[in-house]
Amino acid sequence: MTTRADCARLDDTDALAPLRDQFQLPDETIYLDGNSLGPLPITVAARLQRVVAHEWGTNLIGSWNSADWMRLPHTVGNKIGSLLGAGDGELIVTDSTSVNLFKVLDVAASISGGARDVILSERDNFPTDLYIAGSVAAAHGMTLELAERGSVATMLDERVAILLLTHVDYRTGAMHDMAATTAAAHAAGAVVVWDLAHSAGAVPVDLHAADADFAVGCGYKFLNGGPGAPGFLWVHPRHHGQQSQPLAGWMGHAAPFDFTPDYRPAIGIAGYQAGTPPILSLAALDCGVDTVLAAANLGGIAALRAKSLALSELLIELVEPVGREHGLTVVTPRDPTKRGSQVSLSHPANGFALMQALIARGVVGDFRAPDVLRFGCTPLYTRYVDIYDAVDQLAEVLGSGEWRRPEFSRRGLVT
Amino acid sequence: MTTRADCARLDDTDALAPLRDQFQLPDETIYLDGNSLGPLPITVAARLQRVVAHEWGTNLIGSWNSADWMRLPHTVGNKIGSLLGAGDGELIVTDSTSVNLFKVLDVAASISGGARDVILSERDNFPTDLYIAGSVAAAHGMTLELAERGSVATMLDERVAILLLTHVDYRTGAMHDMAATTAAAHAAGAVVVWDLAHSAGAVPVDLHAADADFAVGCGYKFLNGGPGAPGFLWVHPRHHGQQSQPLAGWMGHAAPFDFTPDYRPAIGIAGYQAGTPPILSLAALDCGVDTVLAAANLGGIAALRAKSLALSELLIELVEPVGREHGLTVVTPRDPTKRGSQVSLSHPANGFALMQALIARGVVGDFRAPDVLRFGCTPLYTRYVDIYDAVDQLAEVLGSGEWRRPEFSRRGLVT
Repeated sequence: MTTRADCARLDDTDALAPLRDQFQLPDETIYLDGNSLGPLPITVAARLQRVVAHEWGTNLIGSWNSADWMRLPHTVGNKIGSLLGAGDGELIVTDSTSVNLFKVLDVAASISGGARDVILSERDNFPTDLYIAGSVAAAHGMTLELAERGSVATMLDERVAILLLTHVDYRTGAMHDMAATTAAAHAAGAVVVWDLAHSAGAVPVDLHAADADFAVGCGYKFLNGGPGAPGFLWVHPRHHGQQSQPLAGWMGHAAPFDFTPDYRPAIGIAGYQAGTPPILSLAALDCGVDTVLAAANLGGIAALRAKSLALSELLIELVEPVGREHGLTVVTPRDPTKRGSQVSLSHPANGFALMQALIARGVVGDFRAPDVLRFGCTPLYTRYVDIYDAVDQLAEVLGSGEWRRPEFSRRGLVT
Repeated sequence: MTTRADCARLDDTDALAPLRDQFQLPDETIYLDGNSLGPLPITVAARLQRVVAHEWGTNLIGSWNSADWMRLPHTVGNKIGSLLGAGDGELIVTDSTSVNLFKVLDVAASISGGARDVILSERDNFPTDLYIAGSVAAAHGMTLELAERGSVATMLDERVAILLLTHVDYRTGAMHDMAATTAAAHAAGAVVVWDLAHSAGAVPVDLHAADADFAVGCGYKFLNGGPGAPGFLWVHPRHHGQQSQPLAGWMGHAAPFDFTPDYRPAIGIAGYQAGTPPILSLAALDCGVDTVLAAANLGGIAALRAKSLALSELLIELVEPVGREHGLTVVTPRDPTKRGSQVSLSHPANGFALMQALIARGVVGDFRAPDVLRFGCTPLYTRYVDIYDAVDQLAEVLGSGEWRRPEFSRRGLVT
C-alpha cells in the first residue's frame, strides 16, 4: 500500500512538479475539479491588465489591427490545435461548445445526409451534445438514436449519417479509442464528430492520425481558460468549403469589412466564426493554453499523460479499500488506456452529500447526478500527496458520518 | 456660427459632463468611435481583478454559486432591459448578436410562418443581419426580401412573416420610428425583430410601448462592454414558451444540472441560453452598462439623448461649410427624430484615406465601405469642444491634402 511518504518522494522526483507554479491555487484546498473549471494561471491578471488598459483603454478601436485582435481566434486556435494533432489553420476558438456543435452537426448533416437519416450518439453523452444533436436532427428530418455505452459499434449501419461521441465521458471518465471508432464509423459510411471537452489538454489526441471529420471542445476545463471561456472547433481540411455553416455571421464572411449584402463564406476554418470575437475571454484562454504548452520541453502531452495516469492509479489504489467499507465503487475504467484524466466514484444513495462534506474539508471535486463523485487528476498542478490527502479526508468524511449533517444536502444552482 | 468659446461654455454648463470621468480616455485623442467600440470604464480593471483573483483564483468552481455567476446573464440583462423598456426577466446577455439573431429569427419563423414565407429586411441593413436572415430563410423554406430604405411599408403584405430591421442604421445613423413601424408590420400580420446594436445606451427605446416582438443587440458599442462583449436578446413575454430556439444547449435547459438526456427548455428568457456564460466578458459588460445607468439621476436616457442630439447638431452645423468646399456631404438625417447618436459623412472617392489621415491627427472615427465616414456623438464622454476640434482637424486634413499620402490608403484587416 502506498504511504504518504511514498507520495512525497514521488513529488520530489516529479519532473513536471515545477509546472504547478504556473497557477494561483488557494492554500488549504486540494483542487481536484480542473476537469470542470481549470484554476487561475498566474499570467492572466497581467495579460488582462494589458488588454484592458493598453489595448482597449489606450489604443481603442485601433487594436483590432495593431494588437491583432482579429487574428486571436486563429492564434489561440493554432496553439490548441498543436495539442490535438491538428494542422495550422484547421482549428478556431469561437462561441461555446454547444454553439460549435450546432455548426458542425449541421454541416455534417448536409454533407452526409442523403439516404442516411440517423445521428448516432450515446445515451450517457454530455446532455448538451444530445440536446443540440436532437435539434439538428429535427431540422434535417433525421432521427437521433442513442446507444448504450459499449454498443455503438453494433448500431453503425447504413442509416447512420453522423456518429457524435464525447471522447472522454464527463461522468465516468471512460475514454473511447478515437482511431478505431472513427475507422469503424467510416467503414459504415458515417462521418464522425468528436467532443473533446474532457480531452483537450488532458490526454493525447491526434485528430489527423484518427482521420476524424469534425471536433469541438471546451476552453475552461483542462485548458484553464477561465469561467465560460470560449469553445473551439476543428474541421478536417477535406470538409473545408464543402458546405457553409448556418450561423452565417459577418465574421465568417470572406471579406467582412466589405459589408456586402450577400454572404460569401470564408473558405476554411474562418468560415466557422459568426459574431465578433470575445477578446477579453480569448486573452485569458491564451494564458490557459500556454500552461499546457509549457510542458513541451518536459515531455509534452505524453509526459502529462503518464503523470495523469500515475495519479489516477494512485487514487484508485487508495480509495478502493475505503470504498469497500462504505459502499463507494470506482466507475472509471481500470484499464489505463480506457480512461481520461479523472477518477469517478459512485455512491448510489448519498453521493451529493458526501461531496459537499468533502468540499467543506477543502477537498474540491464535484458531483454529477445521479450518483457520481468526480475527481480530476490534472498533472499540471496536482501532487501525489494531494491524492493521498484527498482520499484520507474522504475516509474521514465516511468514517465520521459528518456528511449526514443537513447543510450538506442543500443544493445550489450548480452542483 | 458656433465658436470654440461657445463650445467651451456649453461644456461648462453641461450637467452630464462629470460622466466623462467614468472612462479612461487617451490624452491627445478625440474619440468619436464609441458607436463601434465604447471606451474603457475605469471600473473594469478592478472588477476583472476581483473576478480573476478572488472569484476564479480563490473560490474556483464554487463561484458559480457563491459569486452568482449563473445569474450574471440575467442581472446584466435586467440592467440593459431597464434602458430599453423591457421588464425584469425578459432580456438576457448571451452569445453574440449574430448568434442571437439566429435564435430569434428561427423562433419567429416557426411561430409566424405557415402560409407566410417572406422575411423582409432592408438592403442597407447591417450585413450580419442579412446573412443570418438568409440562412434562417433557407432553413425554413422562406425567402429573404430586401427593401430599399424608406420602402419597407410598401412591401409589408400577406406574404411577410417577419420584419427584421436595425433600429439605427450602422452606416448613415438614420433611425426608424420603432412604434409606427412595428404597428404597420403587425397590421400586416408580421412579427418584428429589432436589432438594437446602435440603439442600446444611445437613444430612447421602449420595447413594450412599441409592442415589439423580439430584439437583439450589442454590448460593445454604446454599452461600453469591451471588445467582443457578449450580445443580448429580448423576447416579448407573449412569445415566451411558444417555441424553443434551435441552439438547444444545456444552459437553456429547465434544469441543466439534472443532466437528463432529453431537452426540456426553460420557460422564458433563460431558454435562449446555449452554452456556459462567459464570466470575464460579462463582468466587463456589467461595468459598461453601469456607465449608462449612472446618468439615471441626471435625467437618464432622455438627458443623454438631448446632449447626443446637441452634439450631432453641432457637428452638422460646423461640418457643412467644410463639406461644401470639399465634396463631403452629410448623409445622416437632419431631422433629429430620425437619427441615432452618430453623424455620417459621404466622400465618394476618398473616404477611407480621409479617415485615416484624420485618425493620424488623433481624431478617431471610422470608415464604412463604400464611402462613409462615421462619427459617434456619445454624450457620456464627448465634449462640445471635441466636436469643434474634430471638425477643425477635418478641415485641416482636407485643406492640406495630406490625406493623399500613400500610407493613408493602406488597409488593415479592420477598416
